[in-house]
Amino acid sequence: MTSSTSSSTFGPTTDDGAQPAFSVPAGFASRHIGPTSEAAATMLAALGHDSLAELVDAAVPGSIRQSAPLDLPAALSEAEALEALRGYARRNTVMTQMIGQGFSGTHTPQVILRNVLENPGWYTAYTPYQPEISQGRLEALLNFQTMVADLTGLDIANASLLDEASAVAEAILLMRRANKKKAQGTVVLDADIFPQTRQVVAGRAKAVGIDVQIVDLATEGLPEGELCGVVLQQPGDSGAVVDHSALISEAKERGAMVTVAADLLSLTLITPPGEQGADIAVGSSQRFGVPLFFGGPHAAYMAVRSGLQRQLPGRLVGVSHDAEGRPAYRLALQTREQHIRREKATSNICTAQALLAVAASMYGVYHGPEGLTRIAERVHGHACALAAGLKAGRRRLVSESFFDTVQVRLDLDAEAEHILFAAEEGGINLRRVDETTVGISVDETTTAEHVDAVLRAFGAPFEASEGTPAGSAADSRDDRTAFPESLRRTSEFMTHPIFHEVRSETQMMRYLRKLADRDLALDRTMIPLGSCTMKLNAATEMEAISWPEFAGIHPYAPAEQAAGWRALIEDLEAKLTAVTGYAAVSIQPNAGSQGEYAGLLAIHQYHLAHGDADRDICLIPASAHGTNASSAVLAGLQVAVVATAEDGTIEMADLQAKTAQYPDRIAAIMLTYPSTHGVYEAEVREVCRIVHEAGGQVYVDGANLNALVGLAQPGEFGGDVSHLNLHKTFCIPHGGGGPGVGPVAVAEHLKPFLPSTAVGGAGENGAGTDAVSRGGAPVTSTPYGSAGVLPISWAYLAMMGAEGLTSATAHALLGANYIARRLSGHFPTLYTGEGGLVAHECILDLRELTKLSGITAEDVCKRLIDYGFHAPTLAFPVNGTLMVEPTESEDLVEIDRFIEAMIAVRAEIQQVIDGELEAADSPLRHAPHPAAVVASDEWDRAYSRQQGAFPVSGVLQDKYFPPVSRIDGAHGDRNLVCSCPPPEAFEIR
Amino acid sequence: MTSSTSSSTFGPTTDDGAQPAFSVPAGFASRHIGPTSEAAATMLAALGHDSLAELVDAAVPGSIRQSAPLDLPAALSEAEALEALRGYARRNTVMTQMIGQGFSGTHTPQVILRNVLENPGWYTAYTPYQPEISQGRLEALLNFQTMVADLTGLDIANASLLDEASAVAEAILLMRRANKKKAQGTVVLDADIFPQTRQVVAGRAKAVGIDVQIVDLATEGLPEGELCGVVLQQPGDSGAVVDHSALISEAKERGAMVTVAADLLSLTLITPPGEQGADIAVGSSQRFGVPLFFGGPHAAYMAVRSGLQRQLPGRLVGVSHDAEGRPAYRLALQTREQHIRREKATSNICTAQALLAVAASMYGVYHGPEGLTRIAERVHGHACALAAGLKAGRRRLVSESFFDTVQVRLDLDAEAEHILFAAEEGGINLRRVDETTVGISVDETTTAEHVDAVLRAFGAPFEASEGTPAGSAADSRDDRTAFPESLRRTSEFMTHPIFHEVRSETQMMRYLRKLADRDLALDRTMIPLGSCTMKLNAATEMEAISWPEFAGIHPYAPAEQAAGWRALIEDLEAKLTAVTGYAAVSIQPNAGSQGEYAGLLAIHQYHLAHGDADRDICLIPASAHGTNASSAVLAGLQVAVVATAEDGTIEMADLQAKTAQYPDRIAAIMLTYPSTHGVYEAEVREVCRIVHEAGGQVYVDGANLNALVGLAQPGEFGGDVSHLNLHKTFCIPHGGGGPGVGPVAVAEHLKPFLPSTAVGGAGENGAGTDAVSRGGAPVTSTPYGSAGVLPISWAYLAMMGAEGLTSATAHALLGANYIARRLSGHFPTLYTGEGGLVAHECILDLRELTKLSGITAEDVCKRLIDYGFHAPTLAFPVNGTLMVEPTESEDLVEIDRFIEAMIAVRAEIQQVIDGELEAADSPLRHAPHPAAVVASDEWDRAYSRQQGAFPVSGVLQDKYFPPVSRIDGAHGDRNLVCSCPPPEAFEIR
Repeated sequence: MTSSTSSSTFGPTTDDGAQPAFSVPAGFASRHIGPTSEAAATMLAALGHDSLAELVDAAVPGSIRQSAPLDLPAALSEAEALEALRGYARRNTVMTQMIGQGFSGTHTPQVILRNVLENPGWYTAYTPYQPEISQGRLEALLNFQTMVADLTGLDIANASLLDEASAVAEAILLMRRANKKKAQGTVVLDADIFPQTRQVVAGRAKAVGIDVQIVDLATEGLPEGELCGVVLQQPGDSGAVVDHSALISEAKERGAMVTVAADLLSLTLITPPGEQGADIAVGSSQRFGVPLFFGGPHAAYMAVRSGLQRQLPGRLVGVSHDAEGRPAYRLALQTREQHIRREKATSNICTAQALLAVAASMYGVYHGPEGLTRIAERVHGHACALAAGLKAGRRRLVSESFFDTVQVRLDLDAEAEHILFAAEEGGINLRRVDETTVGISVDETTTAEHVDAVLRAFGAPFEASEGTPAGSAADSRDDRTAFPESLRRTSEFMTHPIFHEVRSETQMMRYLRKLADRDLALDRTMIPLGSCTMKLNAATEMEAISWPEFAGIHPYAPAEQAAGWRALIEDLEAKLTAVTGYAAVSIQPNAGSQGEYAGLLAIHQYHLAHGDADRDICLIPASAHGTNASSAVLAGLQVAVVATAEDGTIEMADLQAKTAQYPDRIAAIMLTYPSTHGVYEAEVREVCRIVHEAGGQVYVDGANLNALVGLAQPGEFGGDVSHLNLHKTFCIPHGGGGPGVGPVAVAEHLKPFLPSTAVGGAGENGAGTDAVSRGGAPVTSTPYGSAGVLPISWAYLAMMGAEGLTSATAHALLGANYIARRLSGHFPTLYTGEGGLVAHECILDLRELTKLSGITAEDVCKRLIDYGFHAPTLAFPVNGTLMVEPTESEDLVEIDRFIEAMIAVRAEIQQVIDGELEAADSPLRHAPHPAAVVASDEWDRAYSRQQGAFPVSGVLQDKYFPPVSRIDGAHGDRNLVCSCPPPEAFEIR
Repeated sequence: MTSSTSSSTFGPTTDDGAQPAFSVPAGFASRHIGPTSEAAATMLAALGHDSLAELVDAAVPGSIRQSAPLDLPAALSEAEALEALRGYARRNTVMTQMIGQGFSGTHTPQVILRNVLENPGWYTAYTPYQPEISQGRLEALLNFQTMVADLTGLDIANASLLDEASAVAEAILLMRRANKKKAQGTVVLDADIFPQTRQVVAGRAKAVGIDVQIVDLATEGLPEGELCGVVLQQPGDSGAVVDHSALISEAKERGAMVTVAADLLSLTLITPPGEQGADIAVGSSQRFGVPLFFGGPHAAYMAVRSGLQRQLPGRLVGVSHDAEGRPAYRLALQTREQHIRREKATSNICTAQALLAVAASMYGVYHGPEGLTRIAERVHGHACALAAGLKAGRRRLVSESFFDTVQVRLDLDAEAEHILFAAEEGGINLRRVDETTVGISVDETTTAEHVDAVLRAFGAPFEASEGTPAGSAADSRDDRTAFPESLRRTSEFMTHPIFHEVRSETQMMRYLRKLADRDLALDRTMIPLGSCTMKLNAATEMEAISWPEFAGIHPYAPAEQAAGWRALIEDLEAKLTAVTGYAAVSIQPNAGSQGEYAGLLAIHQYHLAHGDADRDICLIPASAHGTNASSAVLAGLQVAVVATAEDGTIEMADLQAKTAQYPDRIAAIMLTYPSTHGVYEAEVREVCRIVHEAGGQVYVDGANLNALVGLAQPGEFGGDVSHLNLHKTFCIPHGGGGPGVGPVAVAEHLKPFLPSTAVGGAGENGAGTDAVSRGGAPVTSTPYGSAGVLPISWAYLAMMGAEGLTSATAHALLGANYIARRLSGHFPTLYTGEGGLVAHECILDLRELTKLSGITAEDVCKRLIDYGFHAPTLAFPVNGTLMVEPTESEDLVEIDRFIEAMIAVRAEIQQVIDGELEAADSPLRHAPHPAAVVASDEWDRAYSRQQGAFPVSGVLQDKYFPPVSRIDGAHGDRNLVCSCPPPEAFEIR
């Protein structure tokens, strides 16, 4: 405990005259937290409180307050944090990675690295739920969908899923619900599938009771019995490229659906799954320019044949039109999403991997189909050279038909060890498939020298220096392929002009700038989204993630090569443990939804381990986030809803009734704390007690942890498990809709059920110190999920320290309460806690105004764009409301600018109420206003151009104009178009 | 010679059927060069040529063509180049740098690093000559001026100069011209001034015949005789902080002017030069967040008292107003600039260090006066702790009055060596002042541990682990200072709100985004500036410059610590030598103007060394860039103008006449080739011959080298010396007006006169292989000038290779000629070469149209903004014209977009000619059109809003709106305001 925080900061305030509690410590915290002490004083005055401590005391029930400061090391400066990160980085060893197994070396075009992954305009953007200010990233994601659909030979693709293994699990769930007649049938997984996929699928299938059989289809054929679906992989885990058409026909004749997990790059050369008859294709787009990142984040994809699009999990970009009739992009079929379908949801996926999908999409745009094909041919050429060299050395190949991966079956037991060692000496990692099998995967970064070095490791019988046939052959184009000629792709792909227009770096830089400029992200405005915690993503936090020593490590690399990674992760898990008050944390889940799933699975497994197989009911308050219910379903639990009172708190009587109703069946309750209504419930300890007494476990959803850090600990006030959202509370940027990281934190008794890190080829290699005790099913493809972005949260925690984190929480409360108070005369706050205070967010109730004026909360959202703001959260958790969360990072000037915008909007609503304007004629309904509208020659609106475009003088000079008018969502869902429209569609009519 | 280029590419084309000459090789070149082969074919067809080779043959006189391809290694891929750069980086050793001597460690705020130095929106911008699209960077630079003026206690500051040593030289020139009565008097330099300053000043003074005396003013006082000016330094080279007021009074009483070279950070604590009575202050702003960069680029500053502002060299931002009467920024007093004053110029400085001045300015904005003061106090506290520890160890300090630098006089001869070694063992570089003096400079990055480590190196008599008094004292605030209480600063500074508003990172990120968005840079549009070569600045080229192993090296660090730097520089110089055909290159000059000066100085020295003291005439064609003449003057030469013919070529008769007129006095001719008229002159060899025959040397200005690389070599066709502009031809970004790098290349006989790298403390340490033979005066403060940005040009050359570079040149010709041809029916091209072709740029003649319509070339420039373009070069080299240079990086779509904009503008001019509109009422005269104008409620223009804002449909959706209307330049010069106006000035009236 090296924190220097005085104890007066904790528990209800004491009068010991110590320095002001919760004040912002010097250093990074003072850069992260928006309000200065003068500003905080102003805000407190508006709230009638003398100090932050007084405000916190009034807002946060004393019963849950933690008694001691967070047990964290003293805060580091930004320079010290970078130095510490360099220290971790130095402990990793960057090798030439030829392990493959779903993760390939790739050249991230520097222009994309710099202008997307390192550009706040892209990475600080939110999920594109407000399409008018998201046209840039929606276009990028639509390009992704078009590229994936084309490459897989299927009709429609989403953008995107979390990782390949969980994408396969999602495909299985999709087959089960789409193939209703065979829903009870077996799902067959071909044995030649990645081990990590098997592991993740096994856990998922077991939880929901799907019968999954692993069959060596090449030798055994399809099994007898009712078949729901078949999952194949192309190329296989062994590298084998196989003609699946006969098998697929047979499966379909028997009423099964077919999914193929496919490598996108190989599909430039090989007949795609869609043309082979598959219904679904899934896989990873990592090798399209996204670094290895020690396993993630990478965008997985799913493509389906026509007819299945409404079953697609994850996000889908569609084309609709705006109020001027011009094409415009939006998220399609949002009603499928788990937050709306709740317990009827079929997938709990919420976060996508948007930023990585954008990167992969831009890689496709930059290389185009010819470029991708050239890369694939080069890769294949190197693999052929390698195979030729190995065969010349009398090595036995596992398959003679391959694309980029060659496996060698050895004769002697110890030989694999020897060869791997020899390769490692040469700076190359190969894959140790088993005792007698070594795998070699070739990728975009492979050179003839690498091929030679691998051959040397195998003791190839020639001198590399002679100019080996292998080496020299590799770079020359060769029309022969190592897979059957019948599998050679003949169809065109990526024919849309966007894949042909951008070839120079200047063009790419400008295309990226143009798209980024269409969008509103945190680098231009606050994004006051309740429940999403859009806080600063500091440059220092972001700095390390693209360092080669972090980004260049393969997830299944030998443990000693990732010593720095594992030390950083262990420290991060320890810090998160200290923050939450639990016994252990696993950072494996790569999204909040996965964390929920992992946590509920832990609970379920715990009950099973204690012989409580009947505990299958998960209580969920009516106010909960929809993902909760869908995660419960996926973890094999049934949902029972607990009523919430008018004020948003749990109805204790109903809770008592529910526990009584299901004796010995209560598995868990899922709470969000503070509740999604934005208030601290004083009786949370009592809720926990009741559930515990009923034999249930308490799951505390960490979505609102930003209101707790340093003040209260879920692990202390009654939680058994929580998931956190590192992309909310711990500064991982939202990336326009991902990456997210959703660690799961558990109490001591649940530790054995945390997800295992022994996944993929990692074996114990990938295991952290706690690995032995982590026996739950892995939830992602790799030991540490989206490891690549963890340095961000590590840096945040390290630079804030206990005092900074606690001060941040207090300032988050301050901002939300200040907004609620300042707007109280204009928009009432729906729920407040005991002192009339909210937590870190407030729900502004517009329902009465809507009744009076016809102006909806959505109109207000769109109108705020004209004021230069991103909208608050719309219609969650209550329809007709806006939920506002300023976070601690917003300064008073920006908060006041928002308040003034809201007051001005309120006045515009009053104009309608007063009959000065019809709702349909108001600037609110016509919002947002693109430049082309307000500066057009025609103007027949009932309000002035000035009011339309410049409702406040602050936007006169540095105005953000949306590129489109209000988008017609319903039209887009009725007429589903999910790939790039032809350029003519955008022509001026 | 490892290039694989076929010889058919060189010399006039042969019919050997080899692959198309000048075609774009695969790899990076295909990303750098804009047009695809299909596009190039289209462009060639428009020109009536079948191939690039044919076009090149037609455009470039055979007489100058080089006979062999460039002798460069095979091109590297982007990944290979980064790997090679990492190799160089690994050979450097990053130490804690306590050498000082004008270069201090500093923490670059990551938010500034990422969003300015690594953001193309900032670094690809051009010099803000078009103020309407430069309001963002002009505001940043105005902040810089305000900050510097406040800190120095003077009235007005510029933004910016190249380095501290040359800034002192500029101050001396300023004193001489402002102090007319004493212009022949002596300039006294206090002995306690940086050695690098002495060296640079000595060379400059000698060249123009100024009598400079170095005097130890503290002991000797002012010398007898007529005094023109006095230069002091605060703190001194020794670290001494001295009260200069009496000395300054005395000097002024004697009619001298006084300059103080001052450390900006120290001025937060110490009475500033202005308050001590100085007329001028100069110095470096490096320690305001700009990395050491192995010596540069850093922004130097100059501030002057009121009355001297019109004498200020360098760029000066001023406040004027726009057509709507709102305040707007612009470059003030541009008529002072050397390109207009030509041989009457008093300074040849053209490029500033804009990007670095922006970084330093933002550092000031982010820290504010309290933050800067806190940093200064911390630095001073550490220095005090250090001094106390040294004195406790009975060490003798050179001065008891200091700010951040303590020098120790040792008793034993070998002891300095020993102490420096001990410090180095502890990871710290100290300064070896001389055999018995060691200097220690403390900076923002210094910690108590560093202080302890230094004391240990001095064998301090206590255990650091005990918690030394030094270490513990350093971090605690201490009101005592180590300089006289009378020198403690009492006046306020940086009181403008901008230095008090931005404290959180979120605010800084948004402020930087807001400013960048006001500007048009290469990341949004082509910048078709003739003679400025705004080509791609590729992300891979930019990547390495912020790596600590490059950015963290002190310019006077021991040679072995900079082994990677020196190897990179040596290789870069060799590559540039190969490109230009000279015998050697020095990259020391940190701007084109400095390269010119260094080159002319070499010529001058050469003549002197050959007893030709009378050779003092420099012939300069009438069409030359104004900088040429001013550089000649500064090199001690007299200018004689040679007439140019109607077609822009040198008039041979006049050349003959001039050489005859000055027998044995011709020192040199300065040619630009291709000429500033944008054409290749066929008789350049003849010109060279004539001048050589007259005993003169030939200086070929490399400004237009982009038209020569790979096709012709100045060193081969007759040049004796050239300077290059790495920020034009070799991809260093313009940075909104700097940094630039202006290497000087010379033939064998001039090698001994290249600028010496033995400058500052570097001694032989800093010397490259050629150092012994480089005996010219150093022109910058450090051995390698703006070393920090050299990896950019290195990467460009390495990735392009001979074939890529040559192809780029051919495509530059193609683009310019295509534009000239496509626009020929709309705007005639003023000068063409023999085949009716231009080189890499074309001059569009508007004079006839102006006569007919009253619409000026400037109107066209402003109107192009409404079309989303940066203007071409205006009124250079011929008034009433626009010079257009697309460069090879622009693709055909962008070039066509420009052509179509120009054609649309031409139609608008026709409207005026046809009497449809008065010039004064036309959109051309009212251009540019901000959003607030075109969407305002009032509209009484003679043209439609649509025509004003959206003259072509391409700008409807992604429109750039300038933040201001046309700016009134004359008003700004009449009413000079060069610091930030109060916020009220911007209020809407």
